[in-house]
Amino acid sequence: MTNTVMTQALGEFIGTLILVILGDGVVAGVSLNKSKAQGAGWLAIALGWGLAVTLGVYASAFLGPAHLNPAVTLAFAISGHFPWAGVVPFIVAQMLGGFVGAVLVWLQYLPHWQATSDSAAILGTFATGPAIRKPLANFFSEALGTLVLVFMLLAFTKGQWTEGLAPIGVGALITAIGFSLGGTTGYAINPARDLGPRVAHAVLPIAGKGDSDWGYAWVPVLGPFVGGTIGALLFNLI
Amino acid sequence: MTNTVMTQALGEFIGTLILVILGDGVVAGVSLNKSKAQGAGWLAIALGWGLAVTLGVYASAFLGPAHLNPAVTLAFAISGHFPWAGVVPFIVAQMLGGFVGAVLVWLQYLPHWQATSDSAAILGTFATGPAIRKPLANFFSEALGTLVLVFMLLAFTKGQWTEGLAPIGVGALITAIGFSLGGTTGYAINPARDLGPRVAHAVLPIAGKGDSDWGYAWVPVLGPFVGGTIGALLFNLI
Amino acid sequence: MTNTVMTQALGEFIGTLILVILGDGVVAGVSLNKSKAQGAGWLAIALGWGLAVTLGVYASAFLGPAHLNPAVTLAFAISGHFPWAGVVPFIVAQMLGGFVGAVLVWLQYLPHWQATSDSAAILGTFATGPAIRKPLANFFSEALGTLVLVFMLLAFTKGQWTEGLAPIGVGALITAIGFSLGGTTGYAINPARDLGPRVAHAVLPIAGKGDSDWGYAWVPVLGPFVGGTIGALLFNLI
Amino acid sequence: MTNTVMTQALGEFIGTLILVILGDGVVAGVSLNKSKAQGAGWLAIALGWGLAVTLGVYASAFLGPAHLNPAVTLAFAISGHFPWAGVVPFIVAQMLGGFVGAVLVWLQYLPHWQATSDSAAILGTFATGPAIRKPLANFFSEALGTLVLVFMLLAFTKGQWTEGLAPIGVGALITAIGFSLGGTTGYAINPARDLGPRVAHAVLPIAGKGDSDWGYAWVPVLGPFVGGTIGALLFNLI
Repeated sequence: MTNTVMTQALGEFIGTLILVILGDGVVAGVSLNKSKAQGAGWLAIALGWGLAVTLGVYASAFLGPAHLNPAVTLAFAISGHFPWAGVVPFIVAQMLGGFVGAVLVWLQYLPHWQATSDSAAILGTFATGPAIRKPLANFFSEALGTLVLVFMLLAFTKGQWTEGLAPIGVGALITAIGFSLGGTTGYAINPARDLGPRVAHAVLPIAGKGDSDWGYAWVPVLGPFVGGTIGALLFNLI
Repeated sequence: MTNTVMTQALGEFIGTLILVILGDGVVAGVSLNKSKAQGAGWLAIALGWGLAVTLGVYASAFLGPAHLNPAVTLAFAISGHFPWAGVVPFIVAQMLGGFVGAVLVWLQYLPHWQATSDSAAILGTFATGPAIRKPLANFFSEALGTLVLVFMLLAFTKGQWTEGLAPIGVGALITAIGFSLGGTTGYAINPARDLGPRVAHAVLPIAGKGDSDWGYAWVPVLGPFVGGTIGALLFNLI
Repeated sequence: MTNTVMTQALGEFIGTLILVILGDGVVAGVSLNKSKAQGAGWLAIALGWGLAVTLGVYASAFLGPAHLNPAVTLAFAISGHFPWAGVVPFIVAQMLGGFVGAVLVWLQYLPHWQATSDSAAILGTFATGPAIRKPLANFFSEALGTLVLVFMLLAFTKGQWTEGLAPIGVGALITAIGFSLGGTTGYAINPARDLGPRVAHAVLPIAGKGDSDWGYAWVPVLGPFVGGTIGALLFNLI
Repeated sequence: MTNTVMTQALGEFIGTLILVILGDGVVAGVSLNKSKAQGAGWLAIALGWGLAVTLGVYASAFLGPAHLNPAVTLAFAISGHFPWAGVVPFIVAQMLGGFVGAVLVWLQYLPHWQATSDSAAILGTFATGPAIRKPLANFFSEALGTLVLVFMLLAFTKGQWTEGLAPIGVGALITAIGFSLGGTTGYAINPARDLGPRVAHAVLPIAGKGDSDWGYAWVPVLGPFVGGTIGALLFNLI
């Protein structure tokens, strides 16, 4: 790794931007009225988010380590897998990437927002929400999902992944978490993927968009931070 | 393989735990009321279980051989591919992993149990059951599924799998068995995947959970043991 | 390749048997009444058949070239990619594998046959049939599908496939043909996959199974032979 | 690369032909009446198109660089990744491949056209159309989709892809764009994939086919050219 922190942070910005264009994009495609992908359901969402992360990693990996997720960056710093000096630039770049990615999804589906009257579907295109609103249980869900994510990412580094195919493994992991642990809260498992687009939802002019559910916004931020850190520490124990 | 049996057994515990979190997790996501994945159906279940096994193997492979399945361990011992000294520690670790994995699925979906009144759906999240209850036919189904599993696992070792990608092949095999042979009994093909979570179902406090169908529990234990052993012996013949 | 023709033919038998257990198996799972996979539809069928072929190739490749398809064997012989001496033993082994595979599917789903009254669904589990019965058009469909199959198999050999992963490419090819060219005739594209199981359908005792549609049986045999041969010759031209 | 431009252009013809047989083929399978794949929906379309591109690249890569897309060829020429001398032969070969591929899809599904009365479904099998007709927004959709396509293709070249598996990555990228950005216009993101088959639709004798929507035809041609070029230039900037 000979790139400077700023080059690596540029990689985080680009990778998170691709991740959110394609990730929020698949939710838009499946949820918004008149979209040709409407009704493709949870299979499309879980597969689409997996591909979004795989491609985000490829878009970023030639510039840096491709965390694309503040919970991963923080967990790796706390557990000694990443230098603390990179934490703030990385998280800022990831948040900006999430915001800009969401703005591009808004532009991509521009005629579909006014065709969609369901404000929950509109917010769901940007940020996650709970299936059953119980903050403690929702927090646990996000934490356990991110724990599995970070633990498995570290297990991959011990494995014998053919170097250039590791991003496919990461995407498969995201798809698996979506299928298996995502039904409860929509598996943010990544503060930048949730908070960046939620800010975009708050500032973009979308008719009938409703509020941005700020009361829930701490769950998909703190849950991933706590779960990811526990996952990294557990892995170090072993 | 320089790790001790206990380190390898730790690997079996962790791998089976991941396998059951993600495997029982996808059934919970698809079956429980109000889950966002509800209704994603057999495609999600077959793909999700395949990914669960792939990721379980990655979570385990840096500590040991990653059987994650007592039927595989026993079949490999009988056919001379695994030392007998490891059989009991491995099976204990796998059963514990299955139990703890199921407890974590219960916690992950905590608010969804009381939203679900169908006791068959609740039990189905933990353990398998027959589509048509005919013990002999069900036993044959579990045996043939596990025969194919063990035969193919041994064929993989003869092949030219790029080392680090073999877990993807194992997951694809599980998905294929799910699609093609799983419609009859829900393809336990693994005693730890069925018995561990069934015990969890029996002891966890879930309202309206119904009984744990202990009358059927021998089928997904004995069927895989018998089928896996025949599969390994058949492979040795060839 | 130092194995004798008989060892290689054993490989053809085993590989085609696995291919048909898993391939006819997914159709049974999706079509038969009370199966847990019932209704999973064309996605499951196309993905399941692709996995069936991938795993059939892995089951066979350590013993021989893993054609698993008389149309491939004949086309490779005519185009100079395979010795004529192997053609008859290979085709006999493939046909036997197809027959035995179908018998095992019948046993796997034993209680489901009497639960299923639709004789077209029962026959469809064994052999293919046309969506719209027009023999010439159906013949063309089978021929074009097999032409694409054989042409692509030969293109793979020119490519840079990581050796051990080629069976995944072959499975992806089968899935693609299923999605894109299979809606017309159910894409036999393989005489052993159709004729072997059709004989099994004719001889097995299944209540209400109806006739075996022998009037159509020549289409999924001759179509693949002709299309595969043209595909191999076209490839040689280039 | 020691092949002449004409050999490489032959590769573009063959690859684009395979791409359109399988790509337009999956839309035909999913959309035309009485097709066995009818109703498999957007999941089948997105997965089928991804496989179509993967296999088109394999069919072409032993003869040349396998662009299979005039927008890619032009963007690579403008950004200095491809010599200008190849641009015209490549684009002509790609357009011809698209046309011939569409004619073969017409033959493959010959009995199904008169079984289908919906002229929009018929045209949709050949060429793309907007979900909501707003030319500027539709142009932006096609441009952004192609920008992501070209940017990621260039990022792949910087990555550590195992050489022989790169076509799988390209197919995964196409599937991701379909899931996430395709719901608005059906993601042509390739002038040869849209214009070639649209000409075939105009000239082929199909009862009740309706008009070929030439008023929209500039969008899936110009949008990809502009977006692809911006994507290549953006990548060079970084």
